[in-house]
Amino acid sequence: MDISAFGQDILKKQPINQLLGTTLEEFTQERTVLSIPITDIVKQQHGFVHGGIIGYLADLALFYAAAAIQGDSVTSEYKINYLRPAMGEKLLARAELVNQGKKQSVCRCEIFSVDLGKERLIALAQGTIVPTTAAHP
Amino acid sequence: MDISAFGQDILKKQPINQLLGTTLEEFTQERTVLSIPITDIVKQQHGFVHGGIIGYLADLALFYAAAAIQGDSVTSEYKINYLRPAMGEKLLARAELVNQGKKQSVCRCEIFSVDLGKERLIALAQGTIVPTTAAHP
Amino acid sequence: MDISAFGQDILKKQPINQLLGTTLEEFTQERTVLSIPITDIVKQQHGFVHGGIIGYLADLALFYAAAAIQGDSVTSEYKINYLRPAMGEKLLARAELVNQGKKQSVCRCEIFSVDLGKERLIALAQGTIVPTTAAHP
Amino acid sequence: MDISAFGQDILKKQPINQLLGTTLEEFTQERTVLSIPITDIVKQQHGFVHGGIIGYLADLALFYAAAAIQGDSVTSEYKINYLRPAMGEKLLARAELVNQGKKQSVCRCEIFSVDLGKERLIALAQGTIVPTTAAHP
Repeated sequence: MDISAFGQDILKKQPINQLLGTTLEEFTQERTVLSIPITDIVKQQHGFVHGGIIGYLADLALFYAAAAIQGDSVTSEYKINYLRPAMGEKLLARAELVNQGKKQSVCRCEIFSVDLGKERLIALAQGTIVPTTAAHP
Repeated sequence: MDISAFGQDILKKQPINQLLGTTLEEFTQERTVLSIPITDIVKQQHGFVHGGIIGYLADLALFYAAAAIQGDSVTSEYKINYLRPAMGEKLLARAELVNQGKKQSVCRCEIFSVDLGKERLIALAQGTIVPTTAAHP
Repeated sequence: MDISAFGQDILKKQPINQLLGTTLEEFTQERTVLSIPITDIVKQQHGFVHGGIIGYLADLALFYAAAAIQGDSVTSEYKINYLRPAMGEKLLARAELVNQGKKQSVCRCEIFSVDLGKERLIALAQGTIVPTTAAHP
Repeated sequence: MDISAFGQDILKKQPINQLLGTTLEEFTQERTVLSIPITDIVKQQHGFVHGGIIGYLADLALFYAAAAIQGDSVTSEYKINYLRPAMGEKLLARAELVNQGKKQSVCRCEIFSVDLGKERLIALAQGTIVPTTAAHP
């Protein structure tokens, strides 16, 4: 299976992605970009995007950045900092694998809101992703 | 508004909670317990609960544990460790405020799966929650 | 080698511990307690304990809590929240292993300052510790 | 006081820096580089650099990257991932401020070992730094 089919296959097999309209904008070994449209479904009580949705998107982007290199994987841990309220048309998550070890990879992710076409960095994440073969031997 | 009404009001104003069936099982100044039923909607490609959903639940429970004391709030940052695959009937998140500072609180959260009535610890989170008044003065 | 000898042996083989006066107050499979006296050497420009020293102590306590169960180990990652300035006579770190997996353990640590004999929680940490055999096979 | 004098002044007022030989290699509003020589004092029982020392260096570099912009500061929280054992001649920490908010900044740090002149990325950190004026008003 090529990497694009692999990416779309996983996206499809996670119902939450369909529900939120999560799209794999780019997915190569060098570059992972995911997006979610900002509709009422992803907002919290102040009209901004729900932190839990941003965390979900970070988790997914970190996973994809590692899976692009090491194949099917699971998230072991991550950390996220929220920088400012997110609003506008959509969220964009760009993730990269920073280090591939024998048994796990460490990835980083930047999340942007796109508001009237203008990107703003709204969250920053870093996490550890383990290949499925190593996670459930 | 009493604390229970405050909790239910916020739960209702975040559409993702309705969608996932998130329930505030307990909500007092001492104790926050949230749950999500494990249905297909929250699963990933291996049939376990999606890490992004677990992260969303941790974020929400950390928020509630702080909001119970300091009022409406936003998450500033958190970290989560996944301990084992989550399956069964539902997820339970128990969170507590560990330290209330002047401008932010630090909370901890334990997430359990309930499988055939048996609880298993599946994730551990720690984060910083800022009162809305301090976040957007 | 018994666990106490194992703990003291590692403490002795890390020169920074001698330098800072780090002491293993308790070390059993259930309980890890480390301490550092608060002298000028551990302070920063405001007279409080240097955050880097508190982080070092958290790292070491997380390591010990895991090593007590899984043997010699290395830290894979951790996160620390500073709750308030630390001053007084000494720092106490209490750590516990929360979950032991096949290839890594997740531990938690609370750090206290002891000032005129009174304990105050000053930092909170959570991290992943990998057995040496798994880290460098 | 200019920024270079400010940086050196803080370095000097933290005795642990003198003890470890911590040097501020570069310190401008755009760029923070710190180094530590790898001598026996910073090693652990396997001959690699002690994780607690790497954490200390990350904490300090995150602090400097924020202080370069917002003035004297304290670390609120950080997270670090260790990527591989560190050995060689010295450690280099490069940190940058990613986002400056009204009350805190989020910074990132990469830590390298330099071994026979060759740099290798050995750790990755991300954290929140609060200006002293906001921390102790």
